[in-house]
Amino acid sequence: MNKADIRKLLEKIKNNELEVEAALGILEDLPYKELGFAKIDNHREIRVGYPEVIYCEGKTVEQVKSIIEFMLTKDNNILATRANEKMYEVVESICADARYNALGRTITIQKREEPPTDSYIAIVAAGTSDLPVVEEAVETARILGNRVEKIIDVGVAGIHRLFAKLDIIRGAKVVIVIAGMEGALASIIGGLVDKPVIAVPTSVGYGANFGGLSALLSMLNSCASGVSVVNIDNGFGAAYNASIINKL
Amino acid sequence: MNKADIRKLLEKIKNNELEVEAALGILEDLPYKELGFAKIDNHREIRVGYPEVIYCEGKTVEQVKSIIEFMLTKDNNILATRANEKMYEVVESICADARYNALGRTITIQKREEPPTDSYIAIVAAGTSDLPVVEEAVETARILGNRVEKIIDVGVAGIHRLFAKLDIIRGAKVVIVIAGMEGALASIIGGLVDKPVIAVPTSVGYGANFGGLSALLSMLNSCASGVSVVNIDNGFGAAYNASIINKL
Amino acid sequence: MNKADIRKLLEKIKNNELEVEAALGILEDLPYKELGFAKIDNHREIRVGYPEVIYCEGKTVEQVKSIIEFMLTKDNNILATRANEKMYEVVESICADARYNALGRTITIQKREEPPTDSYIAIVAAGTSDLPVVEEAVETARILGNRVEKIIDVGVAGIHRLFAKLDIIRGAKVVIVIAGMEGALASIIGGLVDKPVIAVPTSVGYGANFGGLSALLSMLNSCASGVSVVNIDNGFGAAYNASIINKL
Amino acid sequence: MNKADIRKLLEKIKNNELEVEAALGILEDLPYKELGFAKIDNHREIRVGYPEVIYCEGKTVEQVKSIIEFMLTKDNNILATRANEKMYEVVESICADARYNALGRTITIQKREEPPTDSYIAIVAAGTSDLPVVEEAVETARILGNRVEKIIDVGVAGIHRLFAKLDIIRGAKVVIVIAGMEGALASIIGGLVDKPVIAVPTSVGYGANFGGLSALLSMLNSCASGVSVVNIDNGFGAAYNASIINKL
Amino acid sequence: MNKADIRKLLEKIKNNELEVEAALGILEDLPYKELGFAKIDNHREIRVGYPEVIYCEGKTVEQVKSIIEFMLTKDNNILATRANEKMYEVVESICADARYNALGRTITIQKREEPPTDSYIAIVAAGTSDLPVVEEAVETARILGNRVEKIIDVGVAGIHRLFAKLDIIRGAKVVIVIAGMEGALASIIGGLVDKPVIAVPTSVGYGANFGGLSALLSMLNSCASGVSVVNIDNGFGAAYNASIINKL
Amino acid sequence: MNKADIRKLLEKIKNNELEVEAALGILEDLPYKELGFAKIDNHREIRVGYPEVIYCEGKTVEQVKSIIEFMLTKDNNILATRANEKMYEVVESICADARYNALGRTITIQKREEPPTDSYIAIVAAGTSDLPVVEEAVETARILGNRVEKIIDVGVAGIHRLFAKLDIIRGAKVVIVIAGMEGALASIIGGLVDKPVIAVPTSVGYGANFGGLSALLSMLNSCASGVSVVNIDNGFGAAYNASIINKL
Amino acid sequence: MNKADIRKLLEKIKNNELEVEAALGILEDLPYKELGFAKIDNHREIRVGYPEVIYCEGKTVEQVKSIIEFMLTKDNNILATRANEKMYEVVESICADARYNALGRTITIQKREEPPTDSYIAIVAAGTSDLPVVEEAVETARILGNRVEKIIDVGVAGIHRLFAKLDIIRGAKVVIVIAGMEGALASIIGGLVDKPVIAVPTSVGYGANFGGLSALLSMLNSCASGVSVVNIDNGFGAAYNASIINKL
Amino acid sequence: MNKADIRKLLEKIKNNELEVEAALGILEDLPYKELGFAKIDNHREIRVGYPEVIYCEGKTVEQVKSIIEFMLTKDNNILATRANEKMYEVVESICADARYNALGRTITIQKREEPPTDSYIAIVAAGTSDLPVVEEAVETARILGNRVEKIIDVGVAGIHRLFAKLDIIRGAKVVIVIAGMEGALASIIGGLVDKPVIAVPTSVGYGANFGGLSALLSMLNSCASGVSVVNIDNGFGAAYNASIINKL
Repeated sequence: MNKADIRKLLEKIKNNELEVEAALGILEDLPYKELGFAKIDNHREIRVGYPEVIYCEGKTVEQVKSIIEFMLTKDNNILATRANEKMYEVVESICADARYNALGRTITIQKREEPPTDSYIAIVAAGTSDLPVVEEAVETARILGNRVEKIIDVGVAGIHRLFAKLDIIRGAKVVIVIAGMEGALASIIGGLVDKPVIAVPTSVGYGANFGGLSALLSMLNSCASGVSVVNIDNGFGAAYNASIINKL
Repeated sequence: MNKADIRKLLEKIKNNELEVEAALGILEDLPYKELGFAKIDNHREIRVGYPEVIYCEGKTVEQVKSIIEFMLTKDNNILATRANEKMYEVVESICADARYNALGRTITIQKREEPPTDSYIAIVAAGTSDLPVVEEAVETARILGNRVEKIIDVGVAGIHRLFAKLDIIRGAKVVIVIAGMEGALASIIGGLVDKPVIAVPTSVGYGANFGGLSALLSMLNSCASGVSVVNIDNGFGAAYNASIINKL
Repeated sequence: MNKADIRKLLEKIKNNELEVEAALGILEDLPYKELGFAKIDNHREIRVGYPEVIYCEGKTVEQVKSIIEFMLTKDNNILATRANEKMYEVVESICADARYNALGRTITIQKREEPPTDSYIAIVAAGTSDLPVVEEAVETARILGNRVEKIIDVGVAGIHRLFAKLDIIRGAKVVIVIAGMEGALASIIGGLVDKPVIAVPTSVGYGANFGGLSALLSMLNSCASGVSVVNIDNGFGAAYNASIINKL
Repeated sequence: MNKADIRKLLEKIKNNELEVEAALGILEDLPYKELGFAKIDNHREIRVGYPEVIYCEGKTVEQVKSIIEFMLTKDNNILATRANEKMYEVVESICADARYNALGRTITIQKREEPPTDSYIAIVAAGTSDLPVVEEAVETARILGNRVEKIIDVGVAGIHRLFAKLDIIRGAKVVIVIAGMEGALASIIGGLVDKPVIAVPTSVGYGANFGGLSALLSMLNSCASGVSVVNIDNGFGAAYNASIINKL
Repeated sequence: MNKADIRKLLEKIKNNELEVEAALGILEDLPYKELGFAKIDNHREIRVGYPEVIYCEGKTVEQVKSIIEFMLTKDNNILATRANEKMYEVVESICADARYNALGRTITIQKREEPPTDSYIAIVAAGTSDLPVVEEAVETARILGNRVEKIIDVGVAGIHRLFAKLDIIRGAKVVIVIAGMEGALASIIGGLVDKPVIAVPTSVGYGANFGGLSALLSMLNSCASGVSVVNIDNGFGAAYNASIINKL
Repeated sequence: MNKADIRKLLEKIKNNELEVEAALGILEDLPYKELGFAKIDNHREIRVGYPEVIYCEGKTVEQVKSIIEFMLTKDNNILATRANEKMYEVVESICADARYNALGRTITIQKREEPPTDSYIAIVAAGTSDLPVVEEAVETARILGNRVEKIIDVGVAGIHRLFAKLDIIRGAKVVIVIAGMEGALASIIGGLVDKPVIAVPTSVGYGANFGGLSALLSMLNSCASGVSVVNIDNGFGAAYNASIINKL
Repeated sequence: MNKADIRKLLEKIKNNELEVEAALGILEDLPYKELGFAKIDNHREIRVGYPEVIYCEGKTVEQVKSIIEFMLTKDNNILATRANEKMYEVVESICADARYNALGRTITIQKREEPPTDSYIAIVAAGTSDLPVVEEAVETARILGNRVEKIIDVGVAGIHRLFAKLDIIRGAKVVIVIAGMEGALASIIGGLVDKPVIAVPTSVGYGANFGGLSALLSMLNSCASGVSVVNIDNGFGAAYNASIINKL
Repeated sequence: MNKADIRKLLEKIKNNELEVEAALGILEDLPYKELGFAKIDNHREIRVGYPEVIYCEGKTVEQVKSIIEFMLTKDNNILATRANEKMYEVVESICADARYNALGRTITIQKREEPPTDSYIAIVAAGTSDLPVVEEAVETARILGNRVEKIIDVGVAGIHRLFAKLDIIRGAKVVIVIAGMEGALASIIGGLVDKPVIAVPTSVGYGANFGGLSALLSMLNSCASGVSVVNIDNGFGAAYNASIINKL
């Protein structure tokens, strides 16, 4: 329920098209829905512009099911991240439209069909091993209504592959750069475009990679100025952020 | 020299208003100017939209002077960060218009006077000790042509001070949040606004702060989704980033 | 065996209601009971007010069984933490009253039934994924005889959920705050209540969370003054501590 | 201004002993006082029971002076921590009653003289080098109205010194343990008393001490259950916390 | 083959009791035996007083078997550490005298039966979970010919259990202290005895234990002076070291 | 396709031995081959002298198969590292010549048979547990056309084993030193030879080894001057580097 | 006052050679002397065999003076470590016999002249920059009554320098190895001698040395078995430890 | 004294051109010269091809002087690194030919004038702030007899500056890449050349740079294969290494 929805509802009351009691029933879950083990933040879309997203890690299959069951009573697109196959099976059993991206580990349910944005988010990744993070970002950006251009395997060890795609990257309104190992791709792209660059370090690598620390520090210390960083492997966060910017 | 400047120059040649030799003299520094100890990236404004910024840390006073001396021959605003007082004195001796922000340690020279943007960047800070980073961000945002609203000392230990300023924060096109210690302010604001939030961890604190690590990790792990992070104490980077977004 | 029990026993001897030899038999395990692989600290209740608690991690099922078998010969409530299902099955086979909290991984045996305290401990948690730590804390607080109020899923990404519960939190004598990711909830609550706040960082999160380090550092650096911290995921320690305070 | 003060003021209005305009003047700074570079949280005493404390690190001498100047217009005790001698000199010039503890680096101004609590806080420290943290804790505890017992230089290398003082420690309502190096003292005392123990790791040590990390980790991993921990060298935070507990 | 063995062999040659060729056959493996994937250091007993010990981690079952097969051709006691059950089964199949300590994960083969030392090594451990490291230390000390006294579960949370055993500890020639969590036991004992103390941090614990880091740093920063430290969980190294000292 | 191949092709066109269209077909994949999930860098051999190597970690079996399938259409030797057995089985099904080194986890396909270099690379390792890294290095060095001498189990605990092999090490053109634990072998060899030494820290060890960190820091801080370092367990990188040097 | 001294005193009382009151005066400081800011552990010599040592870091000049002033009333040798020149000047003003080792930063006062031990401690150091730690160790060992052999600048970059001194090292009863950078010397010596080796990592180095961390980890992970480790730069602790062993 | 020098000397003896006694005097310092506080490794040139280099950090001015005084008696070029101005002044007083590079902090004395190598070492640096490390590398490379090409300020934020210099870089026999912040330059160049690349991370940066850690990890995790790494700020080590390779 976004601001426009509430305005419509209030105008209906004013115009006597809706009874107060009926409106109350619709509004009573507005701040949050108490599920016992969770409080679903229905107010969120009004406050920050998007409905709540379900982070499935550390939740039981039953909990994920209950949350989505409640959400299906509302008219919002639904996104669940870090979901395993079992979770998807249960969700599919209550909503046949649910889609699973096995690589990106996302469940998406498209309840509102709107045309995507004209401007697009470029999602650029260094290597094949970064694909799970890429897919999480792509699914997130799309369910939030954005056009996406995906450019993968353009890591700096063969930088001409990047230059061949520079026009597509420069044409974006905002750029997500996903890279593991030394994460140099973020600096390179940051030095070549005049758009905001959101960098996602990945845990791809071994040894002195220390679970993504090398790419994280690399991106935070980028000598290119237009780069900001999200958590390691956080494809969702980067896409969420990019979506806000893409819709400004 | 931005894209428009080059177009004008080329049109002048076409219209026989400018000799090729004269144009060559103007264009020969275009990619970069070789200073011996440095290569000034003149091409940068065309490529990423802003002229090069001078990071003074680790440079000698003489080097800073030489770089600015060269830059003054161009028609761009000049920003030098992490500059000490000695550097300012020398710069002032060659350009009386140079301004020094002692707290923010910036030198700015305004060569093009243009009206700032309508939309504004909100720069929000947790405590008085964060002011040096705030000032670096403010100076950067302004020299890049942005309107700025500054909201300081609204840390989460007294959260009502933040709520009193929420309207100003929500009115911004992009929000910079600057905080040390536990850096919780970024998450709070990230959960309250529908604009991109750029978080700057500061090195304010002691003990298990580990030079800003606590705020940095805190912000990277923010449970609010619209938050991206720059390096510790990097007020410049945050403002540069915010400026790109503010001008989209 | 607490101080009152010993006083009664000594008075019985004085009044010739108990033979010295019989008393000796009762007292001989007082300092500790030697089990070969462990020394059970029977003296502990006299010294620090509570009987010993069994930390099951790293112990074999047989060892846990032996320790509880001995403890059942005494008249104390029994708490075992970090217990797996196998341990519970064996314990239940020797004591049908044993209860298992699968989420919190605790085994409890209530041997003394006393009314809980009037004042209560508020146990506040940021997200659904923090529930295992919440449950360990709840079970610990209850077996130690405390009234408990549980407020969950009130993380700072939707801070209005917290404000809706502020009265219950403020009514407590001591507050436990459990949060992973950036752990900001501890600072927020620390700035809103005038009661001691015990913060428990959890390992919930990924990437730059580094196994709970982000929440730990965040809580240690809290800008709110009344916050102290226990080990990552240490729901038991927080509740034990809160119980001491609640009974002051 | 605490809750009782406000009630009195409101009753005066009700009884026509005070004009509304006059009351407004008194109340207008209630939520916070805007000083330009800082917002003083006057509402704090109502919310968390104590007036705001000034953390001087990272503030200029002028800023400290201005904040205290404003605070002197209120009827509260004043505490400034991490203050250097220059700050004290300036404060003394505007308030002759200001007292400086050079070792603990605190400035205190006693404006309300009330008898200290009957119960006391025991402040126990391992070595002579921990004294600066001890003094910060002692000054904080006293200005907040607590009776304090100080037991110093009882580190575990000569544990009989500790046992000689055990009665005083056990007699306290809450115990603060301050130790650097390996910080073992917190565990020892935690295993010997039935009172809440607040542990303060100090940065005393060298080499693999890593600025207090060794004592911090040691205390967080204490095998004694009643121990909670504050930031490295945070004598103020420990005493603030202890004061809340001591006054329960 | 130790120095005495070589002397005897050389004297036999001198006295014509042994042919040069036969002596050569005995001596040719002296420096090391080449096994293809390993070089067994036969010279070691002469150089540092003990034959080589087999560290099984990272070796295949076949490699362990081959090494022991060769070693069995010599007249030395054999010790293999970090051995799993499969390794033991294979070793037992070629040497029925091999003994396996499942908790300590050691395989021992006693080929020379000599009376243990008069003086003894005290092996003191904090908790039941430390037993695997204790057993590795005990097996190592015994196969090297030392008398051992084992004192377990005397951690500082119930320090009277330690004092009850202080005489046995003080009677040792060298003391090994094994503890996880905060590792305080090493400092306590270091402050109570006048013998060398070798501290072994264990990885027992969770959260801010960071795999034994807390106990390691604690022991390295011990305020008691006679404490030296070996690697985390290195029961073998501590016992090896203690054995050298015990035999001085 | 290396520089010589291209020259030949161009000369054929010049001499009318090859049609332009045919040449185009050969050249069109030159910069890179787009596989959808990956861009194979065909240009790499021209640019840096060797064809692309497949890093299998994080790739699916299908992806590895597709990449090798394409590569088999070219006339280059093929190397895949960090490959598991399943990957090998699939590769073998499309190319019977593929060889698997189970210890080193490499797949190699020798398509060009050329005599190895006269000068050789010495690959020296400290212990048996380092063998997987040794094998990765050996396979890499050989497929790149180098003669290799392997010297293993010469760790510093029995340094005479190293001295016995010093002549072979000194005879090499470049030396690779592979060691875990404290990694001292690199410094020893660095002080004994006048050839470039490439050090590979391995993750062999436990406790304060921290996944290879101890050997890594040790090697980076080597007091011997001719030592440079690659990532932990990076046998491939060391051999690749050594091969460049060996062929200078 | 050691055990022998007390026995003599008690015998004097028994033999009526000393009045009880006089004996009481001598004994009353036995457990510790209260100095207000410190408790001097007089009991220490009886308990652990040596009088207390003064660690001057973090103490004021006045505190050091007071402690030594009191100690001078006893008949013990005095050692103060980490002392600066000012401290020495003050100590010399009250005791002309005080000696200062400027490199090692120790003050020593020899009050009991006894012949040193026959057996000796070998103190071996890698480089000239390690000399301050060497000197601290030498002064400590000597004041505790040990014969010392100093072998310096024998780091592994030129290992023949070490071999030239091997006989002296092997002749010692216990060996201290002091090294910074990669600390490899400890492993080398550990593999060459059959005596206990106490390793002291130093903070000598830069960059990835991280204040001595590289040498510390190196030594803890030594593949030679007879090595134990003390804190970074802790020459005192190593010598204290070695002295206990040397006198066994 | 290198191998050729020794051969000449021995031939002179053989040909009766030199007396044995005289030769002995020349040879007696061969293995090392004992200076009391240091052992100068004269044998080093024979063993590893270059004379010993003086690392001045942590040495006194007097020690540096003594070492150079002795070295001047030999016929070798002399290099001292990390030297301050005072050291230089003293050295100049005993050798007027000594040259000081203030930026690189090196003292060099050219005693043998030989033509530099034909092939050259390319020393490439990212920014002006990296110049001190560049200068240390340049001085080292030159005193060791190498031709050097210096390419500075070509960091990845303006990557066209790098491409403009690519031919010079590709023409080198070995490439040194020096970069701080995120250190991406090493990966870029590693992907563009077919020569060995030695990467030097610098401590240039702030915040999450952690003293060079970000560039160090970045370079160790480089996705380009031909890159090896030396310690942070170790310009000397890189150049020493490069010199060995350049002279192969």
